[in-house]
Amino acid sequence: MNQLVDGEWRTDAYESTNDEGAFERQESTFRDWIGEAPPADEEFPAEAGRYHLYVSYACPWAHRTLIARSLKGLEDTISVSVVDPYRDEDGWMFTPEKEDCTVDHVHGADYLRELYVRADPDATCRVTVPVLWDTERDTIVNNESSEVLRMLDTAFEEYATRDVDLYPEGYREEVDSIIDAIYEPINNGVYRAGFARSQEAYDEAIDDLFSALDRWDSVLEDQRYLAGDRLTEADVCMFTTLIRFDQVYHTHFMCNVRAIHEYENLWPYLRDLYQTPGVAETVDMGHIKEHYYTTHPDVNPSRIVARGPDLAFDAPHDRDRLDGEPPKAPSPTR
Amino acid sequence: MNQLVDGEWRTDAYESTNDEGAFERQESTFRDWIGEAPPADEEFPAEAGRYHLYVSYACPWAHRTLIARSLKGLEDTISVSVVDPYRDEDGWMFTPEKEDCTVDHVHGADYLRELYVRADPDATCRVTVPVLWDTERDTIVNNESSEVLRMLDTAFEEYATRDVDLYPEGYREEVDSIIDAIYEPINNGVYRAGFARSQEAYDEAIDDLFSALDRWDSVLEDQRYLAGDRLTEADVCMFTTLIRFDQVYHTHFMCNVRAIHEYENLWPYLRDLYQTPGVAETVDMGHIKEHYYTTHPDVNPSRIVARGPDLAFDAPHDRDRLDGEPPKAPSPTR
Repeated sequence: MNQLVDGEWRTDAYESTNDEGAFERQESTFRDWIGEAPPADEEFPAEAGRYHLYVSYACPWAHRTLIARSLKGLEDTISVSVVDPYRDEDGWMFTPEKEDCTVDHVHGADYLRELYVRADPDATCRVTVPVLWDTERDTIVNNESSEVLRMLDTAFEEYATRDVDLYPEGYREEVDSIIDAIYEPINNGVYRAGFARSQEAYDEAIDDLFSALDRWDSVLEDQRYLAGDRLTEADVCMFTTLIRFDQVYHTHFMCNVRAIHEYENLWPYLRDLYQTPGVAETVDMGHIKEHYYTTHPDVNPSRIVARGPDLAFDAPHDRDRLDGEPPKAPSPTR
Repeated sequence: MNQLVDGEWRTDAYESTNDEGAFERQESTFRDWIGEAPPADEEFPAEAGRYHLYVSYACPWAHRTLIARSLKGLEDTISVSVVDPYRDEDGWMFTPEKEDCTVDHVHGADYLRELYVRADPDATCRVTVPVLWDTERDTIVNNESSEVLRMLDTAFEEYATRDVDLYPEGYREEVDSIIDAIYEPINNGVYRAGFARSQEAYDEAIDDLFSALDRWDSVLEDQRYLAGDRLTEADVCMFTTLIRFDQVYHTHFMCNVRAIHEYENLWPYLRDLYQTPGVAETVDMGHIKEHYYTTHPDVNPSRIVARGPDLAFDAPHDRDRLDGEPPKAPSPTR
């Protein structure tokens, strides 16, 4: 991803590794808050039609926020712009002529970085998705996916057309703890493996990743969702990594100890989540595959898109033998 | 692999692609013959202690000849030198200090190319393994793997310590036909996928590869070996690709539609071959993985060796329910 440093955009900052060859993800920069959940910012009240979401269908972090929007039925409340899955040295861009891509509905920008500069002319941060944009104050509210996910989940209750709560009372501590626990070994672990530039850094990432996947696989033996009998934000965070795993991370990032479709419980769990009304519509495997295989020449110089396994995400999963059930109503629109 | 062109060694010839981005393997150059099988060359009579085999444990083509030597019990008849699995711009080299590598037992050369020049000072061919060397005439007999395999199988009967015939009467036409049939889509198909430099060339290689694997998987439903109830050279040729598949080709060459361990018949068939006395000793997975992942920076710039699945090649295979059985006696030495 490109990054504005000393007034110049750098393109090497996203896949940055330290002296030991280990990938180090930089923190997101814009961290304001909509609505009343702490740390709420009174300058950003929850309103319909005011906020806009910039996403890539390819990006697992952005995907989290699209799922929350869809599960809650916030399509009419929060509009969306979709960038090109291919990202070159100029970063995420708007190419509405490509399938499933859109213009920048708010500003008509060509590049996502234009919005970062608009929000902060002195911005020196990475230009990433998701971006939650406030059309009223004309600035970025927040670009940290777990926080945007939380805001969409909790701050827009009065506009949600579906009765879905992904951060339910009684589960919150557990949900926060799981989101935190899976981030480093799993969500970011696949990147640590794929962007490692030393055998040691790769090996450590692989050990962490597969011991975490193994552990969650056995947790899911007896419970339907990560936090128990309720679908929560923790499942959303796990989902966006798992859905990309066999098609991308297994080959492109060399996470090839085991495929998700070889796991006894993670595989039906993944199908269960995929079949939850509102989720499948957020999955664009074409964008996902094009992005990874074509955007990282340091990983895949040929930029050829790997074929990948033919996975039946809509096959029966038998997870309803366990306590808990998904929200039922279909999402009205994408 | 390096190649001598106009007196200069070129390093880009091995992974050569045509204008359509498709990998084109060059033909082997030295094609003389030991013994009486056509096209026999009377200058190269079968003798014990006269011929020497240069191999890489990593190379599937060289591996064929090692298996024949082991299955036939020709260890005392034909000696072996093993090159370094890592191949840089200077080509295959001898690094006896590395595990499982040897000196050049015949000439003490540092690089394999020295032997090519010794055999033919005007050589302009690719420097590949296997090389079958005649210590008496001090030259290369043959460097085409299928022909070296055939010679070891058929020309040294009087020296073989084990009663194994991989090219039995009554099966020969079928064996030749299968070796030919699996070469382009499977043995060379994984390279066509991995070295493709256009999406079209890759897609074509992948289609060919997996339709061939699917077809042979169903053939092996009802018969123990590719040519029926006898282990033949055709199985040796299939084996050296299958044994590398899940650890290397699936990830490194993006042959990721399906793993061999996911095939209903190919996977137990592979275990059956692996457990045939004399075969397992020829498999050096360390050399195999190091070679591919570290030697092709155009494919894997990080040169990190992927972890790969933990496969139980020695697990029961239940192939003895079918007609035919493997040679029984163990190979005396590697």
